Amino acid sequence: MTNRPLGRSLRLGLIGAGRIGTNHAAIAAHHVPGARLVAVADAVEIAAKRLAAELGADAVTTDELLARPDVDGVLITAPARHHADLVVSTAAAGKHVFCEKPMALTLADADRAIAAAERAGVVLQIGFNRRFAPGFVAARAAVDAGKVGTPQLLRSLTRDPGPFTADPARIPQWTIFFETLIHDFDTLCWLNPGARPVAVHAFADALVAPEAKAGGHLDTAVVTIRFDNGAIATAEASFSALYGYDVRGEVFGSAGMVAAGSARTTDMTLYDADGIHVDTARRDTDLLFSAYVGEIAAFVDAVRAGRPSPVPGAAARTALAIALAAIESVETGAPAAVKA
Amino acid sequence: MTNRPLGRSLRLGLIGAGRIGTNHAAIAAHHVPGARLVAVADAVEIAAKRLAAELGADAVTTDELLARPDVDGVLITAPARHHADLVVSTAAAGKHVFCEKPMALTLADADRAIAAAERAGVVLQIGFNRRFAPGFVAARAAVDAGKVGTPQLLRSLTRDPGPFTADPARIPQWTIFFETLIHDFDTLCWLNPGARPVAVHAFADALVAPEAKAGGHLDTAVVTIRFDNGAIATAEASFSALYGYDVRGEVFGSAGMVAAGSARTTDMTLYDADGIHVDTARRDTDLLFSAYVGEIAAFVDAVRAGRPSPVPGAAARTALAIALAAIESVETGAPAAVKA
Amino acid sequence: MTNRPLGRSLRLGLIGAGRIGTNHAAIAAHHVPGARLVAVADAVEIAAKRLAAELGADAVTTDELLARPDVDGVLITAPARHHADLVVSTAAAGKHVFCEKPMALTLADADRAIAAAERAGVVLQIGFNRRFAPGFVAARAAVDAGKVGTPQLLRSLTRDPGPFTADPARIPQWTIFFETLIHDFDTLCWLNPGARPVAVHAFADALVAPEAKAGGHLDTAVVTIRFDNGAIATAEASFSALYGYDVRGEVFGSAGMVAAGSARTTDMTLYDADGIHVDTARRDTDLLFSAYVGEIAAFVDAVRAGRPSPVPGAAARTALAIALAAIESVETGAPAAVKA
Amino acid sequence: MTNRPLGRSLRLGLIGAGRIGTNHAAIAAHHVPGARLVAVADAVEIAAKRLAAELGADAVTTDELLARPDVDGVLITAPARHHADLVVSTAAAGKHVFCEKPMALTLADADRAIAAAERAGVVLQIGFNRRFAPGFVAARAAVDAGKVGTPQLLRSLTRDPGPFTADPARIPQWTIFFETLIHDFDTLCWLNPGARPVAVHAFADALVAPEAKAGGHLDTAVVTIRFDNGAIATAEASFSALYGYDVRGEVFGSAGMVAAGSARTTDMTLYDADGIHVDTARRDTDLLFSAYVGEIAAFVDAVRAGRPSPVPGAAARTALAIALAAIESVETGAPAAVKA
Repeated sequence: MTNRPLGRSLRLGLIGAGRIGTNHAAIAAHHVPGARLVAVADAVEIAAKRLAAELGADAVTTDELLARPDVDGVLITAPARHHADLVVSTAAAGKHVFCEKPMALTLADADRAIAAAERAGVVLQIGFNRRFAPGFVAARAAVDAGKVGTPQLLRSLTRDPGPFTADPARIPQWTIFFETLIHDFDTLCWLNPGARPVAVHAFADALVAPEAKAGGHLDTAVVTIRFDNGAIATAEASFSALYGYDVRGEVFGSAGMVAAGSARTTDMTLYDADGIHVDTARRDTDLLFSAYVGEIAAFVDAVRAGRPSPVPGAAARTALAIALAAIESVETGAPAAVKA
Repeated sequence: MTNRPLGRSLRLGLIGAGRIGTNHAAIAAHHVPGARLVAVADAVEIAAKRLAAELGADAVTTDELLARPDVDGVLITAPARHHADLVVSTAAAGKHVFCEKPMALTLADADRAIAAAERAGVVLQIGFNRRFAPGFVAARAAVDAGKVGTPQLLRSLTRDPGPFTADPARIPQWTIFFETLIHDFDTLCWLNPGARPVAVHAFADALVAPEAKAGGHLDTAVVTIRFDNGAIATAEASFSALYGYDVRGEVFGSAGMVAAGSARTTDMTLYDADGIHVDTARRDTDLLFSAYVGEIAAFVDAVRAGRPSPVPGAAARTALAIALAAIESVETGAPAAVKA
Repeated sequence: MTNRPLGRSLRLGLIGAGRIGTNHAAIAAHHVPGARLVAVADAVEIAAKRLAAELGADAVTTDELLARPDVDGVLITAPARHHADLVVSTAAAGKHVFCEKPMALTLADADRAIAAAERAGVVLQIGFNRRFAPGFVAARAAVDAGKVGTPQLLRSLTRDPGPFTADPARIPQWTIFFETLIHDFDTLCWLNPGARPVAVHAFADALVAPEAKAGGHLDTAVVTIRFDNGAIATAEASFSALYGYDVRGEVFGSAGMVAAGSARTTDMTLYDADGIHVDTARRDTDLLFSAYVGEIAAFVDAVRAGRPSPVPGAAARTALAIALAAIESVETGAPAAVKA
Repeated sequence: MTNRPLGRSLRLGLIGAGRIGTNHAAIAAHHVPGARLVAVADAVEIAAKRLAAELGADAVTTDELLARPDVDGVLITAPARHHADLVVSTAAAGKHVFCEKPMALTLADADRAIAAAERAGVVLQIGFNRRFAPGFVAARAAVDAGKVGTPQLLRSLTRDPGPFTADPARIPQWTIFFETLIHDFDTLCWLNPGARPVAVHAFADALVAPEAKAGGHLDTAVVTIRFDNGAIATAEASFSALYGYDVRGEVFGSAGMVAAGSARTTDMTLYDADGIHVDTARRDTDLLFSAYVGEIAAFVDAVRAGRPSPVPGAAARTALAIALAAIESVETGAPAAVKA
């Protein structure tokens, strides 16, 4: 990492004014000390204009954004298939990069993106938000402090809030691995520090929208992963949890266990004639708000301090390698090796 | 305590075949090693006959029961106003006594009952069930181990499961103090070992059945108690918790806090479109089943081992003194001293 | 309320650069959309300069701050004894006021402050942070939705994190009522909407620093409050909870109960050879961070929208009246009436 | 099921006076209404004598026990390798059978045991204790009530309390599947009623005692199971959880989720300078005490009422088929089909 400390606020541009882009833009504009949002680009011009106006930024094209001298860093929140190319062009423009997951859909693209950032000497951070959720942060700290001992069994799950109302035909095949479980794959590697994933087995199905299975749609999956330190991990996902957004993790080891994640929203509990009740979060942007703030703040801090990214491109590559092995396992019906 | 060890099973009689008597009789018959239920008495002959038949015991009159040589100990579960007299006559008959709370309604009666048991050299145990509820047992153990430090703030509450359907006119005045809060008064003293209650203030009202207030009925109360070690305790009761039976305690001290009690019945949690849900206990005999077993087992063990009672008559007297001070506070509108 | 909507960001000044002032200033500067911190004043010039420099604001005197035309609103975080006078002068300067609790130490001062804000047509909001803590917000929403029925028993507690290291001689007498329990008094009124407190009883002592009791120091208190709808509330405070900052509330009513507040910091749980463990918050500014953001955001939103304050001066007056009655109860040893 | 109602107490014999036999014998003797323990047999005569004496039963040989006319039913708690033969001979003797898991180690033996019980017209119940743990009972009730919808993802885990001190060389190979995970396999089938397991994948290792791996010892495993209704289940086990005995289950479906199981022992929580703490259970016989009572009571009730067993031999066969497929998966490194 060759970037130098930045003696002032970081000026950010954003590419991709969709749902998560809107979330990240508002956080960059209002909730991160030391950052300012200056420009927003989107393939749909009206989307860029609307979001930019709301946050006091300029609506621009992607080319204009990358050419602006007053943009120090870029948040890439465009559709996944464009991520790798955008990382390459953003880095080539000399701008620091925060890229939503997945950074790439092939290992070649991942290598290309990582190389571009290294060549340009810019920070490259991936949007693996769990690493900034307070409970997961505390879990990792406990692992680092030796409180769990050597990890032996791990679990990470992501269940999107239901009901599922999307059109399965418009969801790219393997999305459950590339976009949903990619979080869990990274989380499991991050919570098992120093170990490498070596083999993967996956069972997957279309249980939420079974009628779409013939078209290749998958919405439910369980992936087991063997690490080179012996640990066995389970990653689990569903596209439709009727009770809300559910993100949890567990590390069991030779000395104990840590568990992180809870679907509850507040510390309020209601007791009535039907029992005891707690509210759940319906959106990732509610459940993980502080994680989203934390990851962008960490990106801003890394750039300003001239420090390496806390979630480097290599993490995206490793998680991708697991996703590709899981897909291979679904296709062959057998366990698959994780490519180095 | 002069009773000698008993080299065999304890043969029990029971006086009072009402709701709690039925509960205790079944526990004595089926769930306590080293005990047998041999006889049941009740002022209502048919009640005694029904319960005795169900449990394979004899239905007898109270006089017959006290005269039987094959009865070693007696469980007194008759109405509260008869307790003190029954303790005296049972002890006089040379039988060990387990008496439901309250043991007496006046200090003179309490002294009389205690003296009778001492004179007869029999075990006298009071039915303060919290002392055998696992969470409360663990709380007291933590206090004894110094984990809380010196107790400074305590809380105990009892909320009976609603809806309240009794006829307030048939409930004796001050029942909330004599029969409900008496549990909390004992719990607070027991969780603040070695300290003596010195002053009491009470606010009380008829909020569940306000139409009955004119007749002296009270169903909601908050009592604060000062102890001679400085600790301040709060006891709270309601006759109608719609969510079920609620019994909780808390001890806060110079080194920490312990909390005990939970309305939940099992470790099952349901997550659905309305949030997260847990079931609650609707009856004391569900919530406190293991406490009821534990207290009768402790009585049986004390008698068989020739050990003193773990919940002696003195405990009943102290709790009663607090109840009487609380009643005085309600009547005068001012704090009242606890009589030694 | 006569203030008109503000068509732009709110420019804020802050008076009092101590611990809580530093917290509020950083929140105003970084975490509240639609607000900017422009000036900081403190009786200790160096404190104002340091904080102002850190946040990119001007260090000024209080008089200068009130005279600045580019200050729309003022956050008063000076010592409590100056609050009422500062509210009056700030309102007289035509600026909106956010005043930390307690707003005043006498009812006359409270009336004077409220009248000044009304006369000036400015928003006056009090820093009762519980009203913005997510769990308490949800609890009040449940009360408003009728899920608890008519409130009958309430509880609110505040335990400051220990160990207690302050010099008791430098803490004004009655601080536990004026500065700590004032939160609980407001919370209890707010969670029992529409009811008025009528009578108060208090037990209080110096249990944390008993050697300071002779000097009038009190650090532990339990206050019971009667409301005109029959509800009985308990407020409890300690200056030293070794396990961290503890803020909880409970409303029990004819239909159920809500409980809010938890000392835990994250959703991480550790299981090891000693059992199950959860971390606690050590500072109010950690435990209540989102509440602090929320209350300042609500103040900013009220001013910008031309809406009345969600925590008006009248709330401060009612809580103060309870505090004064509690102090009277401690002094007389008898319950005291709450002055209207 | 051809057994007729029994108009009296059930007289029980027990074969196998080891750890779990001692537990079951005491429960049969003291905690189950309608049952009596009359005889105890063990290959080690002194073990039978000791346990029989303690519980007031006769010490006999297995042959004597099966020949006694005053034994109505037998609890088989001998080592697993003898189970199938003992079921056959007990049934042939006309006695009802409660057999600890696993009932058999081969499908042929399972079929033989089931056939013997059917031929003799006796009740045959398997010791799958989770089915009687209150949280799991409530979970299954929620599934039956449709609260979870169609099960899609299930999880069951068993972690034995550590530290692991046994001699791995004395533990039969595949014990983690035959004796530990067999519980989870049954639980997963029972919580997914009506569905059949079709395919299994397993990762397993010796992580607790790695030096024993060369000898075939396995102590850590994750098994994933596909059901014919599409559901994907995960079973997980370890021989050494330093925090205690951990048994949990989870069913996620189209309408919600139920979770059951908790390592905590009581509802006591300790708060101190190190955070919040809860005690855990160290032994199955503590954590699952009520489940053990419940399963033997259910056996007794089934026999006395002339009802079929709530946990029939077919359940043991299905769980065994999963275990055999898991072992095959470990041996081949590929998923394995579950034999019908």
